[in-house]
Amino acid sequence: MKNAFNSFHELYTHRVNNVLEESIKSITPSLLKTAMSYSLLAGGKRIRPFLVYATGKMFDCQLDKLDIPAAAIEVIHTYSLIHDDLPAMDNDNLRRGMPTCHVQFDEATAILAGDALQTFAFSLLAQTSHLDANCKIDLINELSHASGSNGMCLGQSLDLQSEHCIISYDELKTIHSYKTGALIRAAVRLGMLVAGQKALEYQEQLSRFANHIGLAFQIQDDVLDEIGDVKTMGKEQGADKQLEKNTYISLLGLEKSIQITQQLYQQAIEELNKIPYNSDPLRQLAEFIINRRC
Amino acid sequence: MKNAFNSFHELYTHRVNNVLEESIKSITPSLLKTAMSYSLLAGGKRIRPFLVYATGKMFDCQLDKLDIPAAAIEVIHTYSLIHDDLPAMDNDNLRRGMPTCHVQFDEATAILAGDALQTFAFSLLAQTSHLDANCKIDLINELSHASGSNGMCLGQSLDLQSEHCIISYDELKTIHSYKTGALIRAAVRLGMLVAGQKALEYQEQLSRFANHIGLAFQIQDDVLDEIGDVKTMGKEQGADKQLEKNTYISLLGLEKSIQITQQLYQQAIEELNKIPYNSDPLRQLAEFIINRRC
Repeated sequence: MKNAFNSFHELYTHRVNNVLEESIKSITPSLLKTAMSYSLLAGGKRIRPFLVYATGKMFDCQLDKLDIPAAAIEVIHTYSLIHDDLPAMDNDNLRRGMPTCHVQFDEATAILAGDALQTFAFSLLAQTSHLDANCKIDLINELSHASGSNGMCLGQSLDLQSEHCIISYDELKTIHSYKTGALIRAAVRLGMLVAGQKALEYQEQLSRFANHIGLAFQIQDDVLDEIGDVKTMGKEQGADKQLEKNTYISLLGLEKSIQITQQLYQQAIEELNKIPYNSDPLRQLAEFIINRRC
Repeated sequence: MKNAFNSFHELYTHRVNNVLEESIKSITPSLLKTAMSYSLLAGGKRIRPFLVYATGKMFDCQLDKLDIPAAAIEVIHTYSLIHDDLPAMDNDNLRRGMPTCHVQFDEATAILAGDALQTFAFSLLAQTSHLDANCKIDLINELSHASGSNGMCLGQSLDLQSEHCIISYDELKTIHSYKTGALIRAAVRLGMLVAGQKALEYQEQLSRFANHIGLAFQIQDDVLDEIGDVKTMGKEQGADKQLEKNTYISLLGLEKSIQITQQLYQQAIEELNKIPYNSDPLRQLAEFIINRRC
């Protein structure tokens, strides 16, 4: 039987996929566009768009207004996956069950597809007619802050530097707070910014909620890298060990890691309890994150 | 004796360098920031900032308002150089007289520095307090259109695909109109957009001017790759031949290429003659482009 999360997840995934497919039509047909579409439309859990929609909707924001912010953050996420998979970075061959962009095309095309997707994300936000200029600027500020040298890119750089070194649990948390946390937080914040003042009153609670689920998501990723299989995950497992990456499992062990995700889930729910609006979809997402098998 | 172009060029170069140095202070200290600064502050001719300043100034725009657009387009240009120099792309070891970013650091850091610089460019435009939100959105639209999958990235992708193939003069012109022309046009257009309505009345003339000098710049690049030396150029010469790249020299010969740059210069000046404002700095830039030796 379909549960409520699945219904929302299906709705939002379907919606953002349509927006992405429509938006990409504006790009000149080329090998570059083919590579961009290949990675962008390859599926994926669309968790960041879900967070944009669910957060905005919680404060009665129209879905129309959330479409482009939801699409833009997924475009940023996709560009980062393409570049992270490159041979000079994590050197992954499989992503979302398909050959990674540089395997399917070539390295140069993958670098350029990532570059052009990043540009595309900002272009989508600048162009939409559903939002006024001030709101668009706030969104571009938020997304650029979260994804650049004070956010996601910094996290990936710190992560690469920490390979083959032994770091502490707190250092690992800091790295992930940039590498994956920043974009998860931004997804919630984009939803808030579009929803406006009544959402922004709860920005502290929602930011903490995002921090908790962001970290839980990353720990669960490590758990699945340890116990998952390539078929369900759509990417090669055990890759972190090969790269001598620090993971929550290597630092804390499997049992303790699972325990921490449970605690983070509880803390995330507590933050939602402080907000007098219907936060069911966000609750269900938190639950999905700690129970997911892929 | 210093000529007028050199005075303007020094003024604008100094100005944009200060803006870049100041702006980059907002980035968290890290290896990533070091790599970004290394490439961004390595010098360079700063032709795109010059175009932004000179175009805006022509219509009495305050230089303060042009600072961030001038800086942002140079940041985009720098990110594209870092990525174009990568082993998977043009595999260059020397840039602006210094080791390229991936040689000085490593490939992963260079990819991330390029990524984060792109983000930084849009962030600069979104954050500035010197421009209103509508103007900022126009600038972000312009810059993202020029640099993404319908502009610069497309051009680089087409250029790589054309290696080892024989293409026509018109095809080469099309590739370069995306690869380098789009950003030169955008520089002029950013200046116009900040200057406002009285500048936009001459957008056709200025766009044609930008097209002519953009193409002249590229042909002169090929000429210098053929006859220049590594010391003056700050990059290795003859690299295009090694990559079996199509160049204006390989398609038209040296003499004809030089002749075409002279024609383009004349056409560029004719466009400026149609504009009843003082366009001396732009004229002098056009002259510099066809006479430059580095």
